[in-house]
Amino acid sequence: MSYFENFMKANKAYVDLHGTQHLPLKPKTKVAILTCMDSRLHVAPALGLALGDAHILRNAGGRATEDMIRSLVISQQQMGTREIVVLHHTDCGAQTFTNDAFAEHIHRELGVDVTGQDFLPFTDIEESVREDMAILKASPLIPDDVEINGGYYDVATGRITQVK
Amino acid sequence: MSYFENFMKANKAYVDLHGTQHLPLKPKTKVAILTCMDSRLHVAPALGLALGDAHILRNAGGRATEDMIRSLVISQQQMGTREIVVLHHTDCGAQTFTNDAFAEHIHRELGVDVTGQDFLPFTDIEESVREDMAILKASPLIPDDVEINGGYYDVATGRITQVK
Repeated sequence: MSYFENFMKANKAYVDLHGTQHLPLKPKTKVAILTCMDSRLHVAPALGLALGDAHILRNAGGRATEDMIRSLVISQQQMGTREIVVLHHTDCGAQTFTNDAFAEHIHRELGVDVTGQDFLPFTDIEESVREDMAILKASPLIPDDVEINGGYYDVATGRITQVK
Repeated sequence: MSYFENFMKANKAYVDLHGTQHLPLKPKTKVAILTCMDSRLHVAPALGLALGDAHILRNAGGRATEDMIRSLVISQQQMGTREIVVLHHTDCGAQTFTNDAFAEHIHRELGVDVTGQDFLPFTDIEESVREDMAILKASPLIPDDVEINGGYYDVATGRITQVK
């Protein structure tokens, strides 16, 4: 059995609690949060977000990729967000490999050559947050007056520490 | 004042509830959920996920981009996930523009020429879910035995409907 069926059952209970709500498409706080896919980070409770408050963007590592910039441009230009939070976290899967070792693994497991592809691993968490904030600040697609803050989440304690 | 300061205050309260937990890096359900950044979708409560249960990937639209495939490969090859759920939603921001009109808007607002860039808008929600499931199924980087399910979330009611 797949977990999808479990999720559909849990969703039936959620629907009863949810009721009918007509929240606007544009997020209330005008914030977009860029963070990691990690299973131990539930963004809404960790940041005190209610339904409708903020856009939440997540990929492996919480890295500022082209796809995340595409998403931020839509968030800002179509839905009015004006602030970004870059949030990485401790014990990240992106800290568990190097591109070379990962390419070897992929070739062995899947028979696909991904040599030269950057899977965006990192070692130092504060450095990775600063790097991604700098990428966003340098992007011509993100206006200069958009506020960008950064931090990292501790998966053991739930605590966020700001990175400047 | 930025909302980041609010989030940091809310996080202080969250830390007290969280306590110290040592959950494993590998998600318990071995599922990765690919969905949209929309502010009205809080994935964990909507699917009944506890901390540590599943990877959550989010971009504009919940589209199966290269960055999402990069993230899924890391999720599967480094952290053992074996199931994917593609979850789009009603009243999506990706349904509010066409590439041509968006490129004109970007040029006017930011002075940047993004002509030819696909921002991945869509019109039919079931079609977009099927399209992204097909992209994942066709990827040589995602093993054939990975189960892929899809659906869409109704932002007014919280209800998920399966798409086959």
